Amino acid sequence: MNETRDTASPDAVRAIRWAGDALVLLDQRQLPGRIEYLHLATAGEVAGAIRDMVVRGAPAIGIAAAYGVVLAAARARRESPADWKSAMAGDLRLLMDSRPTAVNLGWAIRRMQAVLNCPGSGDPVADLLGEAERIHREDIEANREMGRLGAAYLSNSRAVITHCNTGSLATGGYGTALGVIRSAWAGGLIDRVYVSETRPWLQGSRLTAWELLQDGIPAVLMADSAAASLMHAGGVGWVIIGADRIAANGDVANKIGSYSHAVSARHHGLRLMVVAPVSTIDPDTPGGVDIEIERRGPGELVEFTGGRIAPMGVEVHNPVFDIVPAELVSVLVTERGAVEAPDAVKIRSLLGR
Amino acid sequence: MNETRDTASPDAVRAIRWAGDALVLLDQRQLPGRIEYLHLATAGEVAGAIRDMVVRGAPAIGIAAAYGVVLAAARARRESPADWKSAMAGDLRLLMDSRPTAVNLGWAIRRMQAVLNCPGSGDPVADLLGEAERIHREDIEANREMGRLGAAYLSNSRAVITHCNTGSLATGGYGTALGVIRSAWAGGLIDRVYVSETRPWLQGSRLTAWELLQDGIPAVLMADSAAASLMHAGGVGWVIIGADRIAANGDVANKIGSYSHAVSARHHGLRLMVVAPVSTIDPDTPGGVDIEIERRGPGELVEFTGGRIAPMGVEVHNPVFDIVPAELVSVLVTERGAVEAPDAVKIRSLLGR
Repeated sequence: MNETRDTASPDAVRAIRWAGDALVLLDQRQLPGRIEYLHLATAGEVAGAIRDMVVRGAPAIGIAAAYGVVLAAARARRESPADWKSAMAGDLRLLMDSRPTAVNLGWAIRRMQAVLNCPGSGDPVADLLGEAERIHREDIEANREMGRLGAAYLSNSRAVITHCNTGSLATGGYGTALGVIRSAWAGGLIDRVYVSETRPWLQGSRLTAWELLQDGIPAVLMADSAAASLMHAGGVGWVIIGADRIAANGDVANKIGSYSHAVSARHHGLRLMVVAPVSTIDPDTPGGVDIEIERRGPGELVEFTGGRIAPMGVEVHNPVFDIVPAELVSVLVTERGAVEAPDAVKIRSLLGR
Repeated sequence: MNETRDTASPDAVRAIRWAGDALVLLDQRQLPGRIEYLHLATAGEVAGAIRDMVVRGAPAIGIAAAYGVVLAAARARRESPADWKSAMAGDLRLLMDSRPTAVNLGWAIRRMQAVLNCPGSGDPVADLLGEAERIHREDIEANREMGRLGAAYLSNSRAVITHCNTGSLATGGYGTALGVIRSAWAGGLIDRVYVSETRPWLQGSRLTAWELLQDGIPAVLMADSAAASLMHAGGVGWVIIGADRIAANGDVANKIGSYSHAVSARHHGLRLMVVAPVSTIDPDTPGGVDIEIERRGPGELVEFTGGRIAPMGVEVHNPVFDIVPAELVSVLVTERGAVEAPDAVKIRSLLGR
């Protein structure tokens, strides 16, 4: 059962919502043209939605997966009441394997597993739902805090560049990099946001520009490749991006093109801010070289809204993330504090290890 | 009257051809899906075809405009035999103003005007046609020579990156940067070509990948923003691009994204080759800051093959060229020779001034 409405009245868009017995996801593949919600009643459907990018963005993937665990448990309790915990193992695996790069996915599922392993007194499905809702709520709170901390750096800037989508659609709500931008706009610290379109999936044009327009924040859309000459022209102080995984040494995996922006920012003396909750930091990944980079199929580059844009038979190189080395990051903003020039020591200290 | 055929048999594609009383242009907007030739009988139609990008690429624009001058003269001779030279002034202006950045346009029209101003003994239209065909033929010969000179630099490389389209479609035939790549491939000096798709118009995916596949040269298509991480991964020795205008100090105006590639190449210690005929050098333009950068409308970024990919009302920054400063150019290859680390003195010397 799906709900559809036109994007003409875009109020109260919630990308992730629990509906009692199903997870309701805004289908981000249809934006900005259509607002369509998918009702997912099984963990397998949630895993498919993550894989097929109905929902994307590292924090949002984690939250969706947590609700997926609730659905897995509810079904296992119905269908295999005697050994429901082992019966849901396949569903947990499906969720865990739905996408490889974002670390929040595994982090959220591990939080849910910790609840599963607790000797609870009440209904275990209700306990799991409570934990999923806590993960969701904590993410929104973390975003607000990161917004406040990150905006404090923007006092001298007039324009910023952002890449991909890190807003309400990519998180539990508000956003990471886009949360900082929202907070900075509210505080009068920036006057416009340049949004790189983010090929091949166009998260920038389809999602970020759409979110910014809804909030009345001046958004200027550009090709990814126009960022370097814009930086050269002056007027931009910061590049602000999110992260899909941060290694123990501070290297950042993020949407393809982040590294290109980071190199250009360094060349032009601009500063680069990475905004991500601590759940994005993976202390078990020593450095960027250890992060698995997802490669998607050729379709995203050879076809477009149904039309073919490249010749038949051409080979395609389509990594969807790249690695920004820590030395190109000016400041890492988390809900536990901002870390300037992040490195392994500072990150260990941030994590309290 | 237009000819259409499917791209299944792509032999003998000629992008620019004179047909006795009309200029026949391959409509590059339809590639790679369809091969369609437009027959243009007036200079106004030629100017429109240049403006609307039926034909693009600096050398090809110059050649098309030269044939446009022939059409202007033929019509003026028919319609205003008494003062035909002044009667064609409007057509010349139309051609000159059809696009602003490529200097070859003005260069080719000035060559045609020099013929107009000669006290010729024969039919002036035939004289003009002879000059247009000479410009066309000389461009192909220049491409072959540049191919030979540029390929000599590639002896230690296995893969190269190119951007936009600089091949048979962008020139009289063979190509500038793509001519070097063709020559290097024929000599066994490269084993593959990474082609950045070149948003927003996708010259890389639609045209360059198509040309390379026709020649059997291994082409790998990627998003523009994937170039930096590819350079970081290693295996690529050179970035090879064309030019729309080269200033007296060696600064290069070329397709948007060229500067981004140049900055990334420098960051990773890769070399950058710019390949362009001397007609692309404009000694009257002191430096890159003096070059007018064409900005096209928002349509190229907010719509795609009929579908809308960005929200209504978003502002768009769409410069279609950027400036690669001379200090990022490792070698400039022209038909008169290659210039390493080009600067004003070396360029003056190349031009024999």
